Formats: sequence, structure tokens, C-alpha cells
Amino acid sequence: MQGQAQQQAYDRGITIFSPDGRLYQVEYAREAVKRGTASVGVRTPEGVVLAADKRSRSPLMEPTSVEKIHKADDHAGIASAGHVADARQLIDFARRQAQVNRLRYGEAIGIETLTKNVTDHIQQYTQVGGARPFGVALLIGGVENGEPRLYETDPSGTPYEWKAVSIGADRSDLQEHLEENYDDDLTLDEGVGLALRAIASANDDELAADGVDVATITTDSEAFVELSNDEIATYIAENDLEPSDEDDEDAEE
Amino acid sequence: MQGQAQQQAYDRGITIFSPDGRLYQVEYAREAVKRGTASVGVRTPEGVVLAADKRSRSPLMEPTSVEKIHKADDHAGIASAGHVADARQLIDFARRQAQVNRLRYGEAIGIETLTKNVTDHIQQYTQVGGARPFGVALLIGGVENGEPRLYETDPSGTPYEWKAVSIGADRSDLQEHLEENYDDDLTLDEGVGLALRAIASANDDELAADGVDVATITTDSEAFVELSNDEIATYIAENDLEPSDEDDEDAEE
Amino acid sequence: MQGQAQQQAYDRGITIFSPDGRLYQVEYAREAVKRGTASVGVRTPEGVVLAADKRSRSPLMEPTSVEKIHKADDHAGIASAGHVADARQLIDFARRQAQVNRLRYGEAIGIETLTKNVTDHIQQYTQVGGARPFGVALLIGGVENGEPRLYETDPSGTPYEWKAVSIGADRSDLQEHLEENYDDDLTLDEGVGLALRAIASANDDELAADGVDVATITTDSEAFVELSNDEIATYIAENDLEPSDEDDEDAEE
Amino acid sequence: MQGQAQQQAYDRGITIFSPDGRLYQVEYAREAVKRGTASVGVRTPEGVVLAADKRSRSPLMEPTSVEKIHKADDHAGIASAGHVADARQLIDFARRQAQVNRLRYGEAIGIETLTKNVTDHIQQYTQVGGARPFGVALLIGGVENGEPRLYETDPSGTPYEWKAVSIGADRSDLQEHLEENYDDDLTLDEGVGLALRAIASANDDELAADGVDVATITTDSEAFVELSNDEIATYIAENDLEPSDEDDEDAEE
Amino acid sequence: MQGQAQQQAYDRGITIFSPDGRLYQVEYAREAVKRGTASVGVRTPEGVVLAADKRSRSPLMEPTSVEKIHKADDHAGIASAGHVADARQLIDFARRQAQVNRLRYGEAIGIETLTKNVTDHIQQYTQVGGARPFGVALLIGGVENGEPRLYETDPSGTPYEWKAVSIGADRSDLQEHLEENYDDDLTLDEGVGLALRAIASANDDELAADGVDVATITTDSEAFVELSNDEIATYIAENDLEPSDEDDEDAEE
Amino acid sequence: MQGQAQQQAYDRGITIFSPDGRLYQVEYAREAVKRGTASVGVRTPEGVVLAADKRSRSPLMEPTSVEKIHKADDHAGIASAGHVADARQLIDFARRQAQVNRLRYGEAIGIETLTKNVTDHIQQYTQVGGARPFGVALLIGGVENGEPRLYETDPSGTPYEWKAVSIGADRSDLQEHLEENYDDDLTLDEGVGLALRAIASANDDELAADGVDVATITTDSEAFVELSNDEIATYIAENDLEPSDEDDEDAEE
Amino acid sequence: MQGQAQQQAYDRGITIFSPDGRLYQVEYAREAVKRGTASVGVRTPEGVVLAADKRSRSPLMEPTSVEKIHKADDHAGIASAGHVADARQLIDFARRQAQVNRLRYGEAIGIETLTKNVTDHIQQYTQVGGARPFGVALLIGGVENGEPRLYETDPSGTPYEWKAVSIGADRSDLQEHLEENYDDDLTLDEGVGLALRAIASANDDELAADGVDVATITTDSEAFVELSNDEIATYIAENDLEPSDEDDEDAEE
Repeated sequence: MQGQAQQQAYDRGITIFSPDGRLYQVEYAREAVKRGTASVGVRTPEGVVLAADKRSRSPLMEPTSVEKIHKADDHAGIASAGHVADARQLIDFARRQAQVNRLRYGEAIGIETLTKNVTDHIQQYTQVGGARPFGVALLIGGVENGEPRLYETDPSGTPYEWKAVSIGADRSDLQEHLEENYDDDLTLDEGVGLALRAIASANDDELAADGVDVATITTDSEAFVELSNDEIATYIAENDLEPSDEDDEDAEE
Repeated sequence: MQGQAQQQAYDRGITIFSPDGRLYQVEYAREAVKRGTASVGVRTPEGVVLAADKRSRSPLMEPTSVEKIHKADDHAGIASAGHVADARQLIDFARRQAQVNRLRYGEAIGIETLTKNVTDHIQQYTQVGGARPFGVALLIGGVENGEPRLYETDPSGTPYEWKAVSIGADRSDLQEHLEENYDDDLTLDEGVGLALRAIASANDDELAADGVDVATITTDSEAFVELSNDEIATYIAENDLEPSDEDDEDAEE
Repeated sequence: MQGQAQQQAYDRGITIFSPDGRLYQVEYAREAVKRGTASVGVRTPEGVVLAADKRSRSPLMEPTSVEKIHKADDHAGIASAGHVADARQLIDFARRQAQVNRLRYGEAIGIETLTKNVTDHIQQYTQVGGARPFGVALLIGGVENGEPRLYETDPSGTPYEWKAVSIGADRSDLQEHLEENYDDDLTLDEGVGLALRAIASANDDELAADGVDVATITTDSEAFVELSNDEIATYIAENDLEPSDEDDEDAEE
Repeated sequence: MQGQAQQQAYDRGITIFSPDGRLYQVEYAREAVKRGTASVGVRTPEGVVLAADKRSRSPLMEPTSVEKIHKADDHAGIASAGHVADARQLIDFARRQAQVNRLRYGEAIGIETLTKNVTDHIQQYTQVGGARPFGVALLIGGVENGEPRLYETDPSGTPYEWKAVSIGADRSDLQEHLEENYDDDLTLDEGVGLALRAIASANDDELAADGVDVATITTDSEAFVELSNDEIATYIAENDLEPSDEDDEDAEE
Repeated sequence: MQGQAQQQAYDRGITIFSPDGRLYQVEYAREAVKRGTASVGVRTPEGVVLAADKRSRSPLMEPTSVEKIHKADDHAGIASAGHVADARQLIDFARRQAQVNRLRYGEAIGIETLTKNVTDHIQQYTQVGGARPFGVALLIGGVENGEPRLYETDPSGTPYEWKAVSIGADRSDLQEHLEENYDDDLTLDEGVGLALRAIASANDDELAADGVDVATITTDSEAFVELSNDEIATYIAENDLEPSDEDDEDAEE
Repeated sequence: MQGQAQQQAYDRGITIFSPDGRLYQVEYAREAVKRGTASVGVRTPEGVVLAADKRSRSPLMEPTSVEKIHKADDHAGIASAGHVADARQLIDFARRQAQVNRLRYGEAIGIETLTKNVTDHIQQYTQVGGARPFGVALLIGGVENGEPRLYETDPSGTPYEWKAVSIGADRSDLQEHLEENYDDDLTLDEGVGLALRAIASANDDELAADGVDVATITTDSEAFVELSNDEIATYIAENDLEPSDEDDEDAEE
Repeated sequence: MQGQAQQQAYDRGITIFSPDGRLYQVEYAREAVKRGTASVGVRTPEGVVLAADKRSRSPLMEPTSVEKIHKADDHAGIASAGHVADARQLIDFARRQAQVNRLRYGEAIGIETLTKNVTDHIQQYTQVGGARPFGVALLIGGVENGEPRLYETDPSGTPYEWKAVSIGADRSDLQEHLEENYDDDLTLDEGVGLALRAIASANDDELAADGVDVATITTDSEAFVELSNDEIATYIAENDLEPSDEDDEDAEE
């Protein structure tokens, strides 16, 4: 009770430090991330896989309108989890950074540079008053100098590089699944399978083709490619994740 | 009691995250949407239907002054539910976006682009201090590249694409009605009927011709057209929704 | 008690949503409107009537200084109820809008356009921080394209079009009186009589000629005309509203 | 007790509406007016009289430094009651408005126009945050088109026109005195006498010549003229208001 | 207890009115004035005398560094009481006003004009948010058109003109001393004596030459002149105010 | 309990002084530093050593993405502890300062100058409202005029120069280790060993080569050089710090 | 308890007056000064001495990095006590003022002018909102027109001139020591000795050469000169202040 009262004192108004050196508004923004359905990224020698759980709340909603994977540039994609409207702001920001880089230097922006531009932008919203932090985490994947790269951004504005990572709901379960099944020598196909099985692991090991988005950026093509529903269905079938019946309701994208 | 006190701590002043990652001011703005009478959108292969419940509070009020459906551009219309004065701001914003697009690119703005311009504008009011969120939801319908499109915007600034959708009072009842009766192969006429019957389903299955607005944007004409009272009366008769007597009082448009 | 405490949490500082989606500062501004004496508008085929109860608090105050009906442009007038100083700001705003329209387009501003310019201005004060809403309602009447038009603005910034309407003290009583006695085929003279009788209905059916302002905008003249005390006295006599004695004290204009 | 707590919630920080539609900061500013000694205005067919109670707190203070009546322009004067430093700001504002009018239009500003410029300025301080209202009321008197005019401004920014009016301490007593003794056909001399007797009525019917300021603007001269101590003494004698002894202490000018 | 709680509600944050029409921050600033040692002004037909009690807290502090009397212009001086750092700001402001007057009009600024420029500046800090009032009172003395003038400014921004006046600690005692001993026909020498005896009256009738500052502006010279320690010592001796021993500690300048 | 309530009063909103002259937000920011894993700096006659504990939380996270040592310029490096996103802002700031110096003066920025530029920037965030302090400490090491220099910055914006210093978790233990084992005549190799043993002292005297970053700036090369994993492994082996097994979880970088 | 609650009401947020006319934030900033180790200034006919206690907290910290005495210009130095990062800001401000004076007027800035520029800057932070006061006191010493001058600035922005003065920890003890031992005819050497003995008086009459900084500005050289460790050691030996052993820990510089 006392601890709760103390906590309340630090999470009103602007983002300030608590006596134990924490930024509660940032931590609450992390909770907003957990309220979103999961996105998963897997890095393989052949390229990066981004996959996102986008279970729709209503049969009348267009699945394509639940956008969780976005093209950031020819060679880079972004998957998100958390507050959807916030994600759109950051993705627009990332796209502008990528465009500016092409205009100014005549070449594609590096994935690490792109990520750090985004995290610097996020950090500003955690230090300067008059606005709240972004309630969203991003996976930024792409190919840089022929190498696949996969980054995560969190609401504090910290960048992390991963071999395979999950953001959003059930992160610890999915991350555990990734850790147990990841291998440095995965083919891209195996990477897609791993990503889908990780997402399915929190859904009774079932997935619908229009309930998930998948995109890849291979080292060969250096191009962001979204998989068609048919391609996704094939992967689902190959990985024994075909749904029996599905009626999710409460998840937020 | 304790939960209530905790909740109060997060909904004063600016829009900030609660410990469970929610933005209460945005959720309260959603309540403002529910306080408005319903609007319904139905997408058919022949075009998009927008319909709005605009029961007047007084016999001396001009029904036409309760504006719930607006022309956004030649090929696009907007229906609203919630805080009327807020809706007017967003609709003016959308019209300016459509005009700018014509001036700058010499062509009609895409429905998806228009929607996302509006949701980006809404999102700003949920993150930056000094203003409250918009207490209104919109249905943005139109024809883009010959295809009918129907979008919803909510107070968080998230865009959704729908086949058929309801906003405002009794949303869950109306949405259930739509889900049960929607068919991908509806004619435009059947779409108008579905929209009217959905609205009527929360009104004892009765509608007055001047108590509802209907507009369509067909793929043939690519033009926003408001139905006359006579046309609406015909649809009401065809769908057995003629009112016996009506005396609503408490609903807000 | 609990409800009251909850309510208090939402009406301090800036205008924000309450958990049930209401804007308390706007609702309190509506109370300020109710604290003002009534104004009434009546639309007839021959023109629009604006009438205002302006009972003076002191025998030494000049009745003409209690301004409740104002000329907005040659063809448009405005009656107010509520916070007098706020009303003056909105009326000045409306006049400038009308002037700008004449300068820019060389023609009189439409009554609907004028009303919506005013309500957009009002809405800003309900959404952006740093100011309170306007504590006043307006009746904007005039002739547009040969047609009489009568609009109401409220503190939320919503425009309504009416055949006959009352704002300010005793609104529900006066509105009931209007609903019972309004007829679509009223002559202008009958419209003036209806307006005066509605105001008198909350004053023991008595009116003093210098206790009420009346103005008309006819479709013939398209001109805002204020009635003289003698003309008003004649209407009062014709409608059997002559006062026996009068000593109001508490009403605010 | 409960009412008091509720009231406190609305009078901190910026000027906002209370649940019953009142602006407490404006009402408290009216209390600041009541804390000031009285000023009285009387309009007669021959001109306007302004008189002010300026009892000094100390025998060493220069009576002339307690300025309560000011020349606003050749043809206009202003008397004040309430917070002295605030009064100076408004009087300077009024003077600038009068000067600008002469420069721009080559003629004297109308008394009504002058008053409304001042009340518009006052109103801004009651609606926009970041400042408090003005704690002062003014009497603005002068001659416009050969006619004597007398206006009052209050802290809400509302203008009133009067035949005779009192502001400041003991307003209700003084106003009652004016109502009982005012006559539409007063000579200017009688008007001065009425003003002095009204002020004296709250001072045991006694006045010292250097304890009161009197100024007139006659329709003949159209000029603001301050009476000399000798002239005031003559009026005091003629009206039997000569003091026996006087030792006020607590009143604020 | 209840009164105290009510009072606290009005003195936090910005300067606003209390329910009884008072500005607590201004009244608290007046307390800051009382915490400062006294300054005294005396106006005689031969000129104005400014004197200030500047008892030093430490034998190692340079008495000259406790500046309480300042030259504002050739013909004008200022004595202060209260918050020293605030006084410096106002004196700098006054000097700039005097300089600007000489540059713009080629002549010395009037003492009344100078005072009112300063009080207008002070008033701003009591009405507009974002700053606190000035915690200092000033005595502004000088010669204008051959006449000696003596003004006081207080933290509300009100100007007063005096024949003789005291500000700062023990004001009521010193003012009583001035009232009992002031004479309209004092010579300048007698004026200096009166000022010193007033200050000494709150110090056991003793003064040290380096514990007091004295300056004069005579109508003959129209020049601000600070008295030397020897001259002050002579006055002290002539007025029988020589100290036996002195060890003040707590007073603030 | 009472002390806790008092403390809470000073740590909300902006950074202000507590009654005992402390800045709680700055002290809480110091707690954020302690929440980060340790960084160590050691200055030897041959050059400066920077070492950082960067134990990864997940086997799938790229160790290189946990950046705790950064190149600031050719001749200068920075190690951080605390809030990672804040560190990135300060390091970017430092890099820009170094670049500007080269552009403006054509030479490398001095280590002391660089440090003080950074601490001035930090101080601003502790005094001016609208932002929180930086929750990070930095070690800035490099060679200036052939001399090795090692500085620390803390969240208050104070610069300190050290022979050997630790920031972050377990500072007092590590600092004690440094004090007991530091020698003014260490070789660079011995300096690396001391830094690693200090970090290991809080980790059961074990270190993994990819769990620590090491960089040196020697007086010979005047160049920032990061050690490879192999080189670090050699040092770990030479200092008997090879890990048996490692499973840290809770530490923040 | 009641007094404490009342006090808390005035020290949150911006700097405002308490009911007894005090500025608590300024008084708390004075506490920050007391938390710093002492600095001492002594003025002799031969020049000014500045000395500062800079006991280091750790044997590995470079004593030279604890800067408490700074050169402000060729002829002026500044010693500080209190919040180190704040001191750096004020010293940079003073240096810029001195530089500007040389550029604009081609001569060295006067010590009094320099001091008052600094105190005006400090005062702004005590009156205008949005920032806290500076938590530091300064001693500004130098030679002006051949005369040695020694000033103190405090957190309120008040300048004082002294013959000898102490700021920081144990001020009253050190000041008492200065008062008992100061002589107007001290040689510069004796002045250094007095300053060192004063500092030592609060340290068991012991000083380490690297635990104290000393600088002088003589009337002959008009140059700021910092004493070397050897010179300081000589003074320590001459004044019998050699330490036996020293292990301070808690003092803040």
C-alpha cells in the first residue's frame, strides 16, 4: 500500500526519476507494448525474417488494415508491437530518415544508423516535458553491406541488436521458444518457420494465414518482400500450424 | 475503491500512460464516441454506403442541421459519431488534405492516404500536451482506383479498414447485426438496406426518413451522393422499418 | 458524495474528458448560459425574429446598455444569452468574419457559413489548453439566398438550425411554449408575438416595452431592423402582455 | 463546509467555470473592487459628474497622489474603485485608445466605443490563462455628439450605461441613495451635490474638501474639468456635509 | 486553523485573488519589505532628504557595500527597503527610464513620471503569471520644475506622494515619529535631522555615521548629493544620536 | 515516515532544492547510474584504459549491440553507466563538440575541454525546467598534449579527474578494489588487468570475453583502439578470470 | 509540525513568497552553499587572497580536478562554495562579461561591475519561473584602479563587499576566526596565512598542501596568480598547520 502510494507520486505529469532511479512513464509505456500482439524477428545468413501476429477482432475488419509490418526503404522493414497510432509516427519518421539519406548521400541508409536515428527520436520523448513516451517497440530488419541486421527499439530509446527476438504480448514465452530453437545456420525458410512457430506457441500452436504477416529481406535481393497469403499458408502447413478454429477477441494489435 | 482512486491519478492533466500501459484520456474520448448516435458504413462491390442515425431532440430543430455525413471530396464522404464540434474540425482537416492533394498532384487523394492523414493528426492530440484528444470516430468511405474503400478512425489515431462497421451508440449490437447479415456480394441497394436495418436494430426496428442520413459513393460514378428524404423513405418502406411513433430524447448526435 | 468527488477531479485546470466521455468545463459553461436571461428566435416564411429578455437590475441603468441583440451584418443579427463579456467577443468575431467575406468575395456571408465560422472558433477554446470555453450561447438569424435562416451556437461549438428556439434561463419552459405554438405558416407579426409570449411565459405573462429587445430580418428587405420601444409596446398590447408591476432582481443578462 | 471545499476547487490557478457556471476569480476580483473606497457618477442633461472618495490614510500623504479620477481625453474622464495599480493599467490603456482614435480618424473617440475597447481588454484577462482578472471597476464619463454618457466597467468585462451609479465600498447603500434622489432634470450643480451626498451617506454625512475628488464634463464645454479644493468646499458647505472631525484608517483607495 | 487552510489555497503558484479580493503574494511581498531595515524620506521646501538605516551584520563587511540609497539621475535618488536583489533590478529599470527620457526628449524625466514608469513595471509582476512580485518598496525623491517631490512605490505597483514617509522595518513607529515632528516649513538641515531621528527612534535613539546613508536633492542645485561620513557624523552629533555601543545582528538590509 | 513524506514533496515536477539544499531529481538520477552495470577507467603513464561490464541478458542478443564504450574522437573514448538512451545523447553531443573543435581550430579537442562541454550541457538539465536530468555517468578518457587524462561526469554536471575510477553498479566495491591495487607506475597491460579484475571482483572474479568491452588510448598512438574478443580473452586468461558458467539476468546495461 | 506543513506549501514549484516574506527556494539554495567545503577571501593593502578547502574524497581523484578557485580575467579571480556544477555556470558567465568589457571598452572590467553583472544574473533565477536559483556562493576578488576589492555573491543575487569573508561549510566558525584575527594592515603573506588558518580552524588546525587552493591578485602585478603546491606547503609549515593524517569522506566541494 505504502509502496503503491510512493509509486503514484512519480508517474503523474512529466517523465521524472523515482527515488530508485526509474522512469515510470517509460516503464508504463513498456506495458503498452505488452498489450499489443507479438511480432518476431529472425536473422539468418540468407536474410532477415519479420513476422507479426495480427489476429483481427472482427470478421468484417480487413486483415490488411491491421498493419504490423511496414516497408521502411527498399532494403529495410519494420515490425511493431504496442500502441498502433504511435507506431505509425515512428515508421513515418524512419521512412523520412531513409529518404533523406538517399537524397543526401545517394545511398541506402545503414540499418544500424536507421535504428539509432529512431531511438534518438524516442529518447527525446522520455526526457523533455510536454509529451509522453512512445508506447511501442519496433523490430527494424534489413541488409547492410551484404549483411543481415536485426534491431529492436524499446520505449526508453535504447537500441539492441538480435539474432532472433520477440516484442509484444507473451514476450518471455516467445523469446524462450526462440532461444531453444534458434540456430546460427538457419536457412531463410527455416527462419520463417521458426518465427511462425514462435508466434503459434502462444496461440495453441495454430495460425491462420490471414492472421499473420511475414516479410523478408534477403542478402541476395536486398529487397523488402511481403509474403502472400498463399505463401504464408504453405509455411503454416509445412510447420503443422493449421488452425482448427479461432475466435480471439481481446488482443490489441 | 482503491482501483478507482488509482485510475483518477492518471486521467488528470495531460495524456499519460497508466501503470498497465493505457491512455485513459483516449479511452474516455472513446466514451464520448459512444455517447453519440450511431453511424454505419457498408462496402459492397458496387460502392460504399454511409448511413447515420440523426434522431433530432426537438420537433423545431431542422433535421438537416444535425450533420453526421459530410462530403470530403468528389469521391469521398465521412460519417461521424461522438462530439459534434470535434467532428467538424476533423472533417475540415480532411477536406483541406483532399484539396491540397488535387492542387499538388492534380488528382484525387486516395482513401487510405486521406484516412492516414487524419489519423496522424488525431494521434498528435494524444501524445503532445496542451490539448485533449478528439472525442469522435469517423467512417471515411470512397472509391480509389475503381475500388470501394471503407475506413474507420478512432480517438487514438488508429486507422482500420472494414467491409462493414458501426461507430457510436450501441456499437456492439449494431456490429453483431452487420456480422450476421453482411455478404461480400451485396448490391449497393442491399448495402443501403443492411445499413438502415442495423441502425433500426437499436431503435425497435423503426426509422423515420428524416431521422437518418444516407450517402453513397459508387464505383461507377466515383461521386459522393446524398440520398433524398424520398429515396430514404423508399428504402425504409422496402425494409419494413416504418416507424409507428417516435419520441427519443436523450441521445446526443 | 463519491460521485461528487469524482466529478471534481475533471473540472479543474484544462478541458479534459471525464471517464464517461463528458467535458465538464463545457457543461459548466452551459450553466453560465442558463444564468443569463432568455433570448428567443422564430423563423417564419416572411423572415426571422430575434427577441431578448433584458430586464434591468436597476432603475438607473440605461435599458439600452443591456445589449442582447446585435447587428452582425446588413442581413444578419445575433441574440445572446449567458456571460455578457464573452458574447461581445463572439459577436465582434462574427462581424469581422462578415466584413472579410464582403471584402474578399464582394458579397454577403451566408448565415450557415457565418455560424460555422463562429462555432469553429468556439470549439478551439474547448480543446486547446490555456483558456476556458465561452460561457455564452448565440442565436444567429438572417436571410441567405432569399431564405430565412436561424441557427444556434452552444458552448461546445456545435451549430444547430431551428425553426424556433430559446436559449438562456428557463429554456425548457420556453422551448415547450414554442413547440406548442409554432406553426410553419406564421406571419412575421405572428412570429414576433410568439417570441414575446414565449419570453413572457416565464415572467407571469407580462413584459415591459423597455424590458425586451426585438429585431427582424425579413426576406423582402434582407435587412436587420431593431424595433422601437413604441413598436414593441404595440406588440405587447396586442398580445395582452402588459405588465401590472415589475421588480425583478436576480436575473443576469 | 462541503460547499466551501467545492468552491475552493474552482478558484485556484486559471479562471475556469464552476459547476454552476460562475467564474470565481472574476467574482473575487469584484470583492477587490468592494475593498476600494467609493466612486460615483451622475449624468445630468448639462453634463456628467464624476466624484470619488479618497480619504487619505496618513496626514503626511499628499491627497493629490491618491488619484481616483483621471482625464482620459479632452472630453472624457474615468473614476475608479478597487486595486489602484490595476486601475492605472486600464486608464493608460484607455488613453492610448483615445489617442489612436484621434490619430487615425481625426476626431474624439466615442464614450461607448472607448468603454467597449476597455471592456474587451478586461475580458481577455478572464478567459485566457497566464494572468488574473483586473481587480478594479471604472466609471467612464464624457460627452459624445453633444450628449452626456456615463458607463461602468466591471471585472468580467461587461459594459453598462447608467444615469447614476456607484462603484466600490458600500455600493448598495450608495446606489440606494442615488435611486431615491436622482431626477432626470438635475442641473450639473445638483448632480455634483447628489454625488457628494451619496459618498457622504456612507461617511456619517460628512466630507472633507481634500477627501474627495470631483470632475465634470459639460455638454457646453465638452471638456474634462477637475474642481478645485475651494470649489469642492463650496459644494460641501452648500450640501451641509462639512466634517466635524475625521480619522479613517482602514479603507483602501 | 480553517482560515489558515483557506489562505494557503491562494498563495501557491501564480498571483490570484482570494475570495475576499486580496492578492496574497503581493501581501507577502509587503512582508519582505518589512524584513528590510528602514529607509526614510522627508520633503522640505529646500529639497528632498533620503536616509537609510544600513546597520552592517559584520565588522568585516564594507558599510558602503550595503547600498540602500542610489542615484537614479542627476536630479533624482532612490532609497529602498526589502529584498536587496529585487531593489537592484528596479533601480536599474529606473535609471534606464531616466536615460531614455534624456535621449528622447533632451530633458530630465519628471519625478512623477519616473515613479509611474516604475510602478507600471511592478504591477506587471503582480498580474501576469510566470514570475513573483518584487519584494521591495522604494522612495523616489527629486526636483521637478523647481519643486521637491517625494514618492513611494509598494509591491502592488501603487504610487503614493508623501511629505515624509518611512518604508521597511518598524514602519508604523517611524511613521508616527514623522507625523509628530514634521513641519511644512522645515529647512533641509532640519529635514535631515528629522529623518535621522526617525531612524534612530527604532534604534534606542542612537546612530553610527557608517550605519546610515543620507542623500539630498535641493531645489537650488537640482542635484543628487550623498553626504560624507563626516557630514553625517555632524548631523548625528547635532541631533544627540551618538551611539554608546552597537551590535545588531538579525536585520536584513 | 515523516522524512519520507517530506522527501516526496521535493521530487515531483521540476528540479528544485530541498530544505537541506539537495536536488532530489539529481540524486535519483544517480540511482539510475547505479542501476547500470559498471564501467572502469584506469590511467597509466602509457595511456588510458576504459573497460565496461556488458553482460548480455539473452543468448540471442548481439553482445556488440550493448554499447558501453564509444569512440568520441581519434584520441578520445567514452565509457558509460546508467540509462543507455541518455548515454547515447551525451556521447553524440560530445562527438559533435569534438568535430566542431577540429573544424574551428584545426586541432583535437582537449580532454578537459571536452569533459567540461559535456558537464555544462548536463547542468542545464538540472536547473532549467521542462526536462529531467540525464540518468547516466560517463568516463571520458584520452590523450592531451601527450598526457593521458581520465575524467568522470556525474548527473549533476560536475567534472572530476581520476587516476582510476569506477561508475555504475557496485561502485564502492570496485573503487575499493582500485584503491588497493592502483599504482602510479602501472604499464598499460597492467592497467587493463586492473580494470578487468575490478569488474570481475563484483562477478565472482569471473569474466567472459564477450561480456566485457575494453578500449585504450595510448600516449604513443594517441588513438582510440577497441580490443578484439581474442585480445580480451588473453587478458582474462592472464588474470585468471575465466568463467566457469554465467547466467546473469537482472542487470541493466 | 504545523509550521513544517506551512513551510512545505511555499517551497514547491516556482520561487514565491511565504507569508512572512521569505523566498524558501533561495534559503534552501543557501543550504546547498553550506553543504560545500569552505572558501575564504582576505583583502590586504597589498592585494586580495582567495583560498579554498578542497579536501578530496578519494585518494585516486586528482586534487586539481576539484576546482574551487578560477581565473575570471587577468586581474580577477573567483572562489566558490556549494553546488559545483552551478558554480561553473556563473564563472563562465563572469568570464564572458569580462571579455565583453575588454572588447567593448578596451579595458579591464571593474570588480564591482563584474560582481553586479553576476548578481543581476543570479536574481533573475529567483524571480522568473521555469528554473531554480543557483546553489552556490562566490567570492570575487581583484584589483580595480589600483585598489584591492573583495566581493561576495549569495543565492539571492545580493552583492556584499568585505575585508575578509568565508563562504560554505562552517561559515560562522570561520567568520569568527577572521573577525578575531583580521587587521587592516596585514601584508599579503599574512593574509594568506590568515586565510589558511581560518580554513584549518574547522579541520583540527591541519591542512594538506594538495587539500587547499590559494590564489592572489596583488596591487603591484594586478595579475591573478595561483600558488604552487610547494608555495602552499611553505605557508602551511610557516603557520604550523601541517597535517598528521587525514581521511575526510563526506564533504562536498
